[in-house]
Amino acid sequence: MLTLFWAKGTCALASHIALEQVGAEYKAERLDFSKTQQRSPEYLKINPKGRVPALITDQGILTETPAILLYVAQLFPKANLAPLNDPFALAQINAFNSYLCSTVHVAHAHKHRGRRWADDPQALEEMTRKVPQTVGDCFELIEQEMFRGPWVMGERYSICDPYLFTLAGWLESDKVDINRFPKVADHRKRMSDIPAVAKVLKVHAAG
Amino acid sequence: MLTLFWAKGTCALASHIALEQVGAEYKAERLDFSKTQQRSPEYLKINPKGRVPALITDQGILTETPAILLYVAQLFPKANLAPLNDPFALAQINAFNSYLCSTVHVAHAHKHRGRRWADDPQALEEMTRKVPQTVGDCFELIEQEMFRGPWVMGERYSICDPYLFTLAGWLESDKVDINRFPKVADHRKRMSDIPAVAKVLKVHAAG
Repeated sequence: MLTLFWAKGTCALASHIALEQVGAEYKAERLDFSKTQQRSPEYLKINPKGRVPALITDQGILTETPAILLYVAQLFPKANLAPLNDPFALAQINAFNSYLCSTVHVAHAHKHRGRRWADDPQALEEMTRKVPQTVGDCFELIEQEMFRGPWVMGERYSICDPYLFTLAGWLESDKVDINRFPKVADHRKRMSDIPAVAKVLKVHAAG
Repeated sequence: MLTLFWAKGTCALASHIALEQVGAEYKAERLDFSKTQQRSPEYLKINPKGRVPALITDQGILTETPAILLYVAQLFPKANLAPLNDPFALAQINAFNSYLCSTVHVAHAHKHRGRRWADDPQALEEMTRKVPQTVGDCFELIEQEMFRGPWVMGERYSICDPYLFTLAGWLESDKVDINRFPKVADHRKRMSDIPAVAKVLKVHAAG
């Protein structure tokens, strides 16, 4: 049995979608960030980083989206979410997901989570001001250089797709017009039409 | 044949060490960041992100440290740098390396690379001011919660070790006293004594 800790509006959506898509038996536990439940003593025992996602497995606890996504793909190989026997193709997937976690998500985080890197209100304001540009630049690069189509890695759907979908879902709130990126915009639409994705989105919308 | 693009003082050191440790046949191409060679038209064709590391392989180009490290481990399984047949143990490695790239490296980058997220000089100064605290907090968590010893993942040396070693090498310049973290400090010392590591360090010191 797997238990995923998630919160509304976070990148935990990607892992949640993957779990649903592979047909895993799992429980989804929502944390309420508005009540800072991610910093509660109970949750810090599960994830000392005080973030989501965290996935409780029979073998222990996993964190970090790229790690959880690949783990889910490995645990359910029949779902075919990653080229597990092709090191180069797998590395391309890992590179894309690394870019999302280390650069794209980080660019976005400077809007509401600027306190990670500064305390002065004017600095926080300046960081927020630049978010549309930095996030826009990231998606420009994805659109022009990385996205192959119809899925991120080409003909084959992979663990890159729910992750890109999750981060692309933040574009409007980051004041970036998704229509600047026709491939990403079309991908987001097709993703949200997948029944497993729609099901998880409904949970997150209600949560 | 593999070609690694690296630059002095960057996280490309981790991939460089891994290539040396597995006994790969590779060429190391240095970019001079002081001459912004990472933004040259030639290099942007190799890595449109304008960063290092980038690894040219017979199958194509790879970027992002976590992806390159796992690829090197998979390409040279006899070097035993990752538990390739144990999805959970591998996910723990991926989670650790994801934390390094998405949180620890990013905390450090606010010192000299603040322009990624702000333009105003006062905001950049404020970001620089907070670096010792944020980087210190990251290493506190690594020391207390993540590092198992004697290597990052316990008895078994892995691709987490050169990566942690690389980022721990930035502590002094980030004004964080490494002696606050005895396990990390001891790890850094033992790592630098490994002949393959010492050899690469010498190249980077001269470069």
